[in-house]
Amino acid sequence: MKLYDMTIAPSPRRVRIFLAEKKLEVETIQVDLMAGEQHTDSFKKLNPWCTVPVLELDDGSTISEISACCRYIEETHPEPALMGTTAKEKAHIAMWDLHMESDGYQAAADTFRNTSKGFENRAATGPEPHAQIPELAERGKKQLNSFFNFLDSRLKDHEYICGKHFSIADITAFVTIDFAKWSKIVPETALSNLKRWQDQIAARESMKA
Amino acid sequence: MKLYDMTIAPSPRRVRIFLAEKKLEVETIQVDLMAGEQHTDSFKKLNPWCTVPVLELDDGSTISEISACCRYIEETHPEPALMGTTAKEKAHIAMWDLHMESDGYQAAADTFRNTSKGFENRAATGPEPHAQIPELAERGKKQLNSFFNFLDSRLKDHEYICGKHFSIADITAFVTIDFAKWSKIVPETALSNLKRWQDQIAARESMKA
Repeated sequence: MKLYDMTIAPSPRRVRIFLAEKKLEVETIQVDLMAGEQHTDSFKKLNPWCTVPVLELDDGSTISEISACCRYIEETHPEPALMGTTAKEKAHIAMWDLHMESDGYQAAADTFRNTSKGFENRAATGPEPHAQIPELAERGKKQLNSFFNFLDSRLKDHEYICGKHFSIADITAFVTIDFAKWSKIVPETALSNLKRWQDQIAARESMKA
Repeated sequence: MKLYDMTIAPSPRRVRIFLAEKKLEVETIQVDLMAGEQHTDSFKKLNPWCTVPVLELDDGSTISEISACCRYIEETHPEPALMGTTAKEKAHIAMWDLHMESDGYQAAADTFRNTSKGFENRAATGPEPHAQIPELAERGKKQLNSFFNFLDSRLKDHEYICGKHFSIADITAFVTIDFAKWSKIVPETALSNLKRWQDQIAARESMKA
């Protein structure tokens, strides 16, 4: 198994953290996103959607999209479980992770990609150009602040996003907060539950991945 | 198990089709989205994100978000498998379904919610108001047309979205095409592979759900 990666990008980082939690080491291949390597014909053969992360399996087939990569890793290396063990846990974690993605991570991406000079005409991922929409960045900022408040409230009575156990949803939420910093958006210091959780997650060895 | 539903809405329909493929009949409870019932305190206790579908399990706990609901159903009723059986299949189907969601269904939602009068100030789902962004609707239309072309190309050499077997990705893609019609966006008639697949999917009993 190989991981097509870009060290500073938040999306492949989520898979690297997932792998580190499983104590797995895999070969990584850097893709130069700033130089547009994801739009080359050779990369499109690995992933027609022109994004990292991409997992290349030992049979040469490829899996893109963060949670699909994590699904493969979870199914082949179930311990420690990061996506649940019972049907109810699996659904519960899937629900929370989807919200960390749509309410947090997507908002951070909308904010950054619709304002950064480097993403002019590349405001959405994928093979086709899309112009930046400043109102979408504004909406993203508003959503991120709501997201931080929501997390703080959730973490008041829960050690982790999904309850008593660390899961993929914690990875998504933690990387979202780092990604939001790229747009200079940070949680207010009054959000003490969020701060407690952030410190706890930051102390995990996997977060260095 | 109960399903909080709204018959005409595309999101709960995806779970109804999934249930029908599994030959499962569950009690459904209609939620009047047009009257704002999803924003009431009693509904927020079931789903703080104010959306349908919501599955209420027999122990009273609830699962929202389409693919989390489907995850629960798949894990408790594995046959026929709609989300894969091997690790590789599960990841492959997850990848395709994520793209049907992000490249198709989300584009249809962006187009409809950012233009329809009924969604003024409700352009994004969730508890908070968000103004419509006309440029986001325009981007959605462009993405939908690319999506239809992409599907046509994919379906030239594949019977179903993920290959030889019907899966959750076919449900997401099929409902996306119906959802796009709400904004009067339909695939060009020249897309004959897409048409072949659409006719084939439409003939399934589950699609009446």
